[in-house]
Order: sequence, then C-alpha cells, then structure tokens
Amino acid sequence: MEAVAETLRAVRQTSPLVHFITNYVTVNDCANITLAAGASPIMADDAREAGQITGLCSALVLNMGTLNERTVQAMLHAGQTANLLGRPVVFDPVGAGASDFRNDTALRLLREIRCAAIKGNNSEISFLAGGMADARGVDAGPESLVTEDNLAENARRARKMAALTGAVIMVSGPIDIVADSREAWAVRNGHAMMARITGTGCMSAAVTGAYLGANPQAPLRACVCAMAAMGVCGELAYEKLRAVDGGTGSYRIFLLDAMSKLDAETLAARARVERLEL
Amino acid sequence: MEAVAETLRAVRQTSPLVHFITNYVTVNDCANITLAAGASPIMADDAREAGQITGLCSALVLNMGTLNERTVQAMLHAGQTANLLGRPVVFDPVGAGASDFRNDTALRLLREIRCAAIKGNNSEISFLAGGMADARGVDAGPESLVTEDNLAENARRARKMAALTGAVIMVSGPIDIVADSREAWAVRNGHAMMARITGTGCMSAAVTGAYLGANPQAPLRACVCAMAAMGVCGELAYEKLRAVDGGTGSYRIFLLDAMSKLDAETLAARARVERLEL
Amino acid sequence: MEAVAETLRAVRQTSPLVHFITNYVTVNDCANITLAAGASPIMADDAREAGQITGLCSALVLNMGTLNERTVQAMLHAGQTANLLGRPVVFDPVGAGASDFRNDTALRLLREIRCAAIKGNNSEISFLAGGMADARGVDAGPESLVTEDNLAENARRARKMAALTGAVIMVSGPIDIVADSREAWAVRNGHAMMARITGTGCMSAAVTGAYLGANPQAPLRACVCAMAAMGVCGELAYEKLRAVDGGTGSYRIFLLDAMSKLDAETLAARARVERLEL
Repeated sequence: MEAVAETLRAVRQTSPLVHFITNYVTVNDCANITLAAGASPIMADDAREAGQITGLCSALVLNMGTLNERTVQAMLHAGQTANLLGRPVVFDPVGAGASDFRNDTALRLLREIRCAAIKGNNSEISFLAGGMADARGVDAGPESLVTEDNLAENARRARKMAALTGAVIMVSGPIDIVADSREAWAVRNGHAMMARITGTGCMSAAVTGAYLGANPQAPLRACVCAMAAMGVCGELAYEKLRAVDGGTGSYRIFLLDAMSKLDAETLAARARVERLEL
Repeated sequence: MEAVAETLRAVRQTSPLVHFITNYVTVNDCANITLAAGASPIMADDAREAGQITGLCSALVLNMGTLNERTVQAMLHAGQTANLLGRPVVFDPVGAGASDFRNDTALRLLREIRCAAIKGNNSEISFLAGGMADARGVDAGPESLVTEDNLAENARRARKMAALTGAVIMVSGPIDIVADSREAWAVRNGHAMMARITGTGCMSAAVTGAYLGANPQAPLRACVCAMAAMGVCGELAYEKLRAVDGGTGSYRIFLLDAMSKLDAETLAARARVERLEL
Repeated sequence: MEAVAETLRAVRQTSPLVHFITNYVTVNDCANITLAAGASPIMADDAREAGQITGLCSALVLNMGTLNERTVQAMLHAGQTANLLGRPVVFDPVGAGASDFRNDTALRLLREIRCAAIKGNNSEISFLAGGMADARGVDAGPESLVTEDNLAENARRARKMAALTGAVIMVSGPIDIVADSREAWAVRNGHAMMARITGTGCMSAAVTGAYLGANPQAPLRACVCAMAAMGVCGELAYEKLRAVDGGTGSYRIFLLDAMSKLDAETLAARARVERLEL
C-alpha cells in the first residue's frame, strides 16, 4: 500500500492547479473538494481564455452536467490545448444518454480530445460504449449497477474501452471499476448516502483531476487512489453522521471534512482495492 | 391528515425525476433539497435539450432568479413540452417587478405556458396579478407581507388568480397561502430564520416540483403539503440550531437534514394547515 | 473603536440591497455572507436588466471569477449606472494576470468604471498596478504575499494606486492592506484555514459591498471594517472548528455562522487594525 500513500502525498506536496469546465450545480463542491484533496481549482469556461487557463494547469476536468454551446466550445479549446501540452484530461459525461445534445457532445469530445480518464456511472459509460460500438464493435452491454454478479463482465468492457480510447475507464457505483487496457481494479469503498446528495460523481472526477495532476506518470494508480479516497471519505462521513444523527446536508459537509483530513495512512489502511483476474 | 402522509410517501416511493431551469445562485440547494425530499433533480437550461429533458421528467420547475435570453428560450421550450405531455410546471417568478426584463419574461411565460403551480412572495405575486390586471380585471392588491389582518383579502386574490391561470397559487411569507379556484388554505409553519439564508423560496418551489411530480392527480394537496413540509423543516432546523448555538450557515445545513429525515408522521403531526372560509 | 461598531450597526439597521455580477463558483457563499452581514443580495448578470437592477441597489459588486462576453457587457452597464447614480462599486479582479481575456477585461473595467473599492490578493493587485504602470508610471512591485517585511512597500503602492483610481485599495493576505490616497491600514485578523476553502476572497468583496452600501460617506472606514469583520469571523470559525475536530467543509459553515452572529462589540474588541506610518 506504499504506492497508495505516495500517490496521495504527491497531491498534497505539489498542490497541482486543476482547470475545470463544469456544471453550475456542483461547481462549488468541486472547488472545495479539490482544495480539500490538496490541489487548487480554477474555473474558466469561455473559449476566449479556456486554452490559456489550461496551459497554466496540471490537469483539466471536463464535466457535461449543464452544457451549452458556449461551454462546449470552451471544452474543445481546453481539451486540445491539454492534449498539445501533454496534460491529463478527465472527462465526466454527466447525463450521457439523456438528450441528443449531450450524446452528440459526449461523442464529439471523445473523438476530438484524448482523455487520460473517463469517469461515469454505468449508464453513462454504457452509452459511450454503445456510441463507440456503432463504429468500432464494442458491445454496449448492461446498463444496470455494477454488482458482484456482473463485475467481471463490466470490468472486461471497461478494459476494452480503455484500449480503444487510451483512457483509464472509471465506472462508479456500489462497486467501482477502474481499468486501463491491461488491468482492471475493483474499489469496494463508499456508502449508499453518497447517492443521496448531488455532486459526489462530479467530486470524484475532481479528485481524479487532482490525483492525475500530481501523478501523471502513473494514471491507473492515480485513478484507483482517487476512487478509493472518495469512497473512504464517504465512509468516514457516514461514521461522523451517525454520531450526530444528521441528514444529507450534514453528510455533504462531513464528506468535505473527511477529504481535507485524509492522510496517506488512513487511505492505505481503509482502501479496499482489488486487481481483478479476468 | 392521512392525505398529507400519503402525499409525502408517494414522493419517496416513486422518486420522480424533476427538471429544473433555475438560477445559478441556489441551484445546488435546489438539487439537494429535491434529493432530500425523495425525488431526483436534473438541471438543463439550453434550448437544444430542454424539451427532451422535460420529456424524461415527472415535473418541471422554472425559476427566474438569474435570467438571460438563452435560458428564457429554454424555459419556453421546456414549458411547452411539459404542457404537451401533461407534466406539471412550477413557476417561481423570482424578482418579478424588479426589472423590465424580468417583468416581460414573467408575463410571457404566464401567457405561453400553462402552470400547475405559481409560487412567489407577496410582492412577486402582486406583480403578476397587476400584470394580468391590465388585461383581465384582477386587482393587484397589497404588496405587504401576508399577516392575519390581510389574510382573507390575499387569499381571495390568490383564488381569483388561480381561476384565471388554472394554476395553484402559492404565496410564501410568515403565513403561506395556497389556493386553487375553489379553495384557499393557510399554512402557518416556518421560522423567521428561513428569510436569513438565500434559497428557501427556491427550495420551496423545488419541493413543490417533487410533490407535484409524485402526486399529479391532486395538485392543491401536493402544493399544501410541499409548503407545510418546508415550513416544518424550517422549524425542526431551528430547534437543532438552538441546541448547538449556530448561525445561518448551520441553519441551511439543518434545513436540508430535516427534509432528508422528514417522515409522513412528523409532517402530519406538525403541519398547521387550515382551509379558509372566505 | 466606536467607529467600527457604528459601521457594522449601520449595515444591520439599513440592510442595504447589494447587486452582484459574480462567478457561479462562489455565488451562493456571496449571497449567504451578504445576508449574514445584515444586507440583502440580488444577482443579475444580463445586460438587459443589469443597469436597472443596480438602480435599485445601494452598492454593486463586480467579480471576474468566471467571465464571459455576456457578463462583461452586464458589468459595464451596471458599473456605468452605479457611477451615474453615485452608488459605490466594489471590483474583485479574480484571476487578473491569468489570461489575456481576464487582463483585458480587468483593465477595461478599471478604465470605464470608477470604483469605490478594489479588492484582490497581492498577485491580482500587482497585475493591475502593472497594467496602469504602462501608461501612468506606477511600479508593479512585488507579487509575493504581504508580510511584515514588505508591508510598508506594499502599503505605499496601494496608496499610490488609490490616488490614481480614486478607489480604496484592499490587498488580501496574511496581513491585509486597506488604503486610500491619504491613509494606509493593516488588518491583522484572519486564519490560514481561510485559504483552504474556495470563496473567502469573493466573500470579502461581498461584505465590503454590504459595508459600503450602508456607509457610503466613509468608504475607507467601511473597507477596513469589512476586512476586519471577515478576518475576525475566520478566527471565530477556527475556534469553533477545533472544538468539534472538523475539516474544511465545517469551516465554511462556521464562517457563515460567525458572520451572522457578529456584533459590534465583538468586532471592536477583536479587530486588529493599525494605521501605518509610511
């Protein structure tokens, strides 16, 4: 688990700057969890400056939560700049599958930007797999939550998508899957309360941006650690919540608290990550 | 009070999806209170997808807090789709009366979209009444807060507006009024602290969207219950706040906590709703 | 310290309305801290209504956190209206120096709008000084944090910038500087935790808007008090945080709590403000 500890320490020691083009619903949570993780966020979503801001940063996070034509243009500019400069791009295709505009945008971003990590729930990842399927023979597969029963099947699909895209594929759910083209990992941290507040998915992508920004040489490990870190914080927040008999408002606060106090030892001790034999 | 309990249970059992086109100030609170109420929020404010997203949802909430031409177009698309599909629309005319742009937009939305519920403070509702008055003979009436002294007068006006618009009219204040064309109810829940944080009005509209989405067959009852639920949570939050000697930051968190833990029994026991004899 | 107490009391007694054109990252925090300070916020960022909304307000806050062409136009309209009507304008040049778009916008706003207060960290203020320097002979000076070692030098620069712009210059950092053309003050309140959450800078500008709106006749004093109030609340929040062993999520909540409960006596007793002999 030394590798896990090292990954987290790199974030806190280098404090990478992360550029976000993200939705206005959870943007404050993304900024605060990025700071809590030990990195620094900067939000800028106009094409006039998006590329230049990316140039200052160690990583770029693109989140489709609330799209419009202006921000799509900014995403393209920023993503292409990141690709040119070799900075990792995290793509969170929020709501892919829900409208033509989102679907077209998701597939366009996939075509025009090379991502270091793509993170979504199983339904979003399934949509992307299906979209690639038309052209390239990937099976879209099941859209249900990842469980022990379908874990192997979903992990194999993630590995295939990783091979096609060059990105680490992160499927969030009760069990998270994190895969590159060679390896697939299961992360069994987290708590059901995380689904009862808005933004935990967006925050996972934010933390991934922070971890990748500080560990660009080891993207798979950075993504596994980011997922585990979010999950562990979800557990720690629930333990705190039970002690004060709170609800979802407090849970969100305790999640941020936990991330800001998470140390390498706790993460290494509590992370339940397993390399899958497929 | 069995009807109250049934209304809340329907939200938690059916978990309706609610589409929001709303301001960026309180959008996170709207998303989190919607989840806390037992429903699921989706935000999408571009005309390219607004109608399609509404088509996936059980209710639509339109909030004018921070308008621009792009979001007005999205509101029109989404509202018309909701009308076509028979999905309830909640309209929150935030700041109506404050600028020509808001005023024109509010009256345009009222003309072009059939709302299931219109929720505002007395000043906003008075503006709408005045705007309709020009054309249709409704008296704009008093703009002050609703108190016991002017309750009957305001309730009669709400009932008249309900008859003209076909919507349930919800006037928020120290005493809330909820009226359709036949009945008017007073809701005497809530706490003065609710006015010391931003977003309680927007959150009331969000909860109304959740309740209407799960109870489309009984709109007046859904709106009365939504107002009572917000008010009861405002009271519960204040009780918690006093115990910890907190301020407005904590109050907002405790309000979300209370909504996420509210059960039918508590709502039925604490709701202070009265059908007015006018 | 009677003047300090009087300044805060004026906010709570007159409850000035403050118009914000600000970023979508911290806008909710700005709204809530404004309410906590005793004023009322209104957000409106479309040129169709920005001027008219400013006309209703006692102060205007312009924050460049997430710029786009639409909001720049709204800032120009609102700023010019505020100038015409003699309402104080607070300018927060977030990220000045980070992109051409921000830089051009910052300098354009400075040229076209007369500000009552300009608040930034030392890097942002240095950028503005440099931008003015090209044309007018101001030395851009050091970009590092303000410390006891460079305090006098930075304070002199702030006084010079104040003379050129007519604005009170507020440099935030471990030591804050607040200066008009004649006097410079150091504010030694605050806590390092304030830098670990997003929005404390934006919230300082918001509180400045509230204080200036209620005390337009004494802008320097209003700005010193606003900076001291934020700093004292940062300290009070940290004391609370230690008692509950919380993290950054709780810290943000306690900061809002502290502002909502701050009274003139506490502010006067804890403010560590010093007029500098330069």
